[in-house]
Amino acid sequence: MPASSKQILLNAFNMNCVGHINHGLWTHPRDRSTEYKTLDYWTDLAKLLERGLFDGLFLADIVGVYDVYGDGIDLTLKESIQLPVNDPLLLVSAMAGATRHLGFGLTANLSYETPYLFARRMSTLDHLTRGRVGWNIVTGYLESAARAMGRPNQVDHDRRYDQADEYLEVMYKLWEGSWEDGAVMEDRGQRLYAQPGKVHKVRHQGEFYQVDGYHLCEPSPQRTPVLFQAGSSARGLRFAGRHAECVFISGQNKAATTRQVEAIRNAAREAGRDPNAIKVFMGISVITAATEAEARDKHAEYLRYASPEAGLAHYAASTGIDLSRYELDEPIRYEKNNAIESAVKTLTRNNDWTVRRILQENALGGRYPALVGSPVQVADALQSWVEETGLDGFNLTRIVTPESYADFIDHVIPELQSRGLYKTEYAEGTLRNKLFDAGDRLPASHVGADYRALTRGLPAREQQA
Amino acid sequence: MPASSKQILLNAFNMNCVGHINHGLWTHPRDRSTEYKTLDYWTDLAKLLERGLFDGLFLADIVGVYDVYGDGIDLTLKESIQLPVNDPLLLVSAMAGATRHLGFGLTANLSYETPYLFARRMSTLDHLTRGRVGWNIVTGYLESAARAMGRPNQVDHDRRYDQADEYLEVMYKLWEGSWEDGAVMEDRGQRLYAQPGKVHKVRHQGEFYQVDGYHLCEPSPQRTPVLFQAGSSARGLRFAGRHAECVFISGQNKAATTRQVEAIRNAAREAGRDPNAIKVFMGISVITAATEAEARDKHAEYLRYASPEAGLAHYAASTGIDLSRYELDEPIRYEKNNAIESAVKTLTRNNDWTVRRILQENALGGRYPALVGSPVQVADALQSWVEETGLDGFNLTRIVTPESYADFIDHVIPELQSRGLYKTEYAEGTLRNKLFDAGDRLPASHVGADYRALTRGLPAREQQA
Repeated sequence: MPASSKQILLNAFNMNCVGHINHGLWTHPRDRSTEYKTLDYWTDLAKLLERGLFDGLFLADIVGVYDVYGDGIDLTLKESIQLPVNDPLLLVSAMAGATRHLGFGLTANLSYETPYLFARRMSTLDHLTRGRVGWNIVTGYLESAARAMGRPNQVDHDRRYDQADEYLEVMYKLWEGSWEDGAVMEDRGQRLYAQPGKVHKVRHQGEFYQVDGYHLCEPSPQRTPVLFQAGSSARGLRFAGRHAECVFISGQNKAATTRQVEAIRNAAREAGRDPNAIKVFMGISVITAATEAEARDKHAEYLRYASPEAGLAHYAASTGIDLSRYELDEPIRYEKNNAIESAVKTLTRNNDWTVRRILQENALGGRYPALVGSPVQVADALQSWVEETGLDGFNLTRIVTPESYADFIDHVIPELQSRGLYKTEYAEGTLRNKLFDAGDRLPASHVGADYRALTRGLPAREQQA
Repeated sequence: MPASSKQILLNAFNMNCVGHINHGLWTHPRDRSTEYKTLDYWTDLAKLLERGLFDGLFLADIVGVYDVYGDGIDLTLKESIQLPVNDPLLLVSAMAGATRHLGFGLTANLSYETPYLFARRMSTLDHLTRGRVGWNIVTGYLESAARAMGRPNQVDHDRRYDQADEYLEVMYKLWEGSWEDGAVMEDRGQRLYAQPGKVHKVRHQGEFYQVDGYHLCEPSPQRTPVLFQAGSSARGLRFAGRHAECVFISGQNKAATTRQVEAIRNAAREAGRDPNAIKVFMGISVITAATEAEARDKHAEYLRYASPEAGLAHYAASTGIDLSRYELDEPIRYEKNNAIESAVKTLTRNNDWTVRRILQENALGGRYPALVGSPVQVADALQSWVEETGLDGFNLTRIVTPESYADFIDHVIPELQSRGLYKTEYAEGTLRNKLFDAGDRLPASHVGADYRALTRGLPAREQQA
């Protein structure tokens, strides 16, 4: 491979809980995920990932519980299907202290976080990590979450995105527009910490949000954290095209993934951005070892601990369909008000979508593509995914943790490096600069950059429109 | 002194910002508080405090800005009067990783935190610290905070406490009542992480809050964090009597402090608790050195950097009175809608409360009692405060940080230890066990313990009433 090949970006995909995506593997004797409540588990993981030059640790999150399957949480509790689940943001400072370069992609559900305080949370983390945080923007979809938060029901899908657009506008005003560059002097002799004329009050009177106040934090290295998003609906894509810098997708095959990647780049283009301004990551599971035979043995061993039924219960919550009510070969029917309604519409179209099929796809307890093979085979596969679909990188799941990451680092990373497809050292600077090599802040072409002018009385794109 | 004397409890009083209580000292050449944005600043501090066997690091917080003085934030920005201010909770995991015993008293304003997610935040921290967190319950008082949060104005004082009572009820249900002891099995062989019959849904339909969901976290070492509170009004005292395990007061002299301590113990008694079930801490500043002369020199040096006017601006926000509008000797008038209305009523009663008096009290940039002297002199003073007022301990401010803490540790702690007034090693266990020597969980006599029965269908005190 020529050295000029596109380098593959890599996040570890994880969650502050026992079971994440490949369900049932918490029962594997070498799996450490039951230690998720301890600091050592996370700092050990962060150091391991930094040894492997991972770009980031991507932490999923869910508010609410998976209570659709069997109309309850029995299996959810038994197999710890993302329940219990602790707050991901509170892990960061410990891991940041144990590393120098690793980024942190943090999922937070904007529907339940007040913008004024959430802006402070992310700015605080951006300071403490010296600019290594990203925000995976989600709006939530679980009815159980809405009820837990004291609301009668979940807000309609597209309406959630309208609300998200406005939420981001408030964030940009706070992160980009409240404190000018150069506001903070830290001048002891002049007794001037910050210059009054350069700190501005944000006044936002919107449909969903009202804010009348100064951002509580001085500008952090990135100001706006790197913006991740994972929406795949038409409305979600429009949101991604406008705001996202990284998009995370669940691919099933290369043809569909190619279309997804194109749709994301088109959405960026339609929002007036460079289509390559968005980095696209796909979730993937990898089982590897020194040889193909060893990898296959390991795969067989993992399968003995996996719980395809737990995967089914997770999927029931994602689709909003109680899959426990179906016979193995009974076609699953479209039901309105599904969490991923448009996807379910497609899947049910041919009357051949059944629990048996889902269970087969869930052999490892989850539904991400799984690569099993020698380092060369895995590297070949990853390379072909990138070359054929236009992907920029992967979110690597844990099957047995931290073994899945360690195996990848010890076996696959050197192979990718030898092909010129993976960095051999970290770039300096913030997460944004490491990913895009274009500075620490949002680029001028991003909508968020417009809000830098807003509170200085200059015309912004929003106001000119 | 006999070895059976009451041991003095000690927290370091600090905040995730530049200027905290003794304003202006950030300009002192040895002050490190401008490094508040960095991890090393906090992990160095935590290790220092643990060397001094401090019970805890008490982190204040404020949402909103001090904009009463001069009707703006000019001086607030210049002297960094708690602005900028970063989120305190996000510091904890890094400091917990750097220490083994130090507790963390975390201020969080319940008016702006949704109970369901805030319960998860504290449970997450209690897990990660292995039971070393406390929650300083505040309801906020700043109009600027209400506006920043999109509300027309601040809720009335007593009404905020009604809301706080209900908030605590929701917290107890989530922390104490949702997951039974023994619910978590972590049994790999049986594929049983948690037992379905032992995890209960919290159903709360109150005046202020509605929750219908399972607590997202499995039980943490303390379940309910140690509950700190600092209200001094009649309604605040009633709240403290019911809920608080530690109360933080600002004393001015021993006579008034004795009355405050008695009022707190009476409030506990009236709530049916042991009057000594509440530990009372008073804020105090200490300047010490090997000799009295050196301590006095240091005091004189500190005064050159202090900003009594910044202290005045802070106090203007606390009282809701724009003190910049007063001549030095003009009696300050009572104004309605003050943040600490009842205190202001008292202070203005004799028509002799003036800006000149406040500035004199603010010589060190803040209004806490300041002890200046040799280790023996400071120990004598602390001992007499405890013996004469019934206090349990102190929240030690920073003047120059971390120097103020280091001086105290190097000079005063050994003197207190030699008198049998301070521990010579940490007790084992959680923060609650260290403070009360009676286990990790809320005692059975605390109202929160009643909610253990609630979701198991047993009669709770609330329901019997």
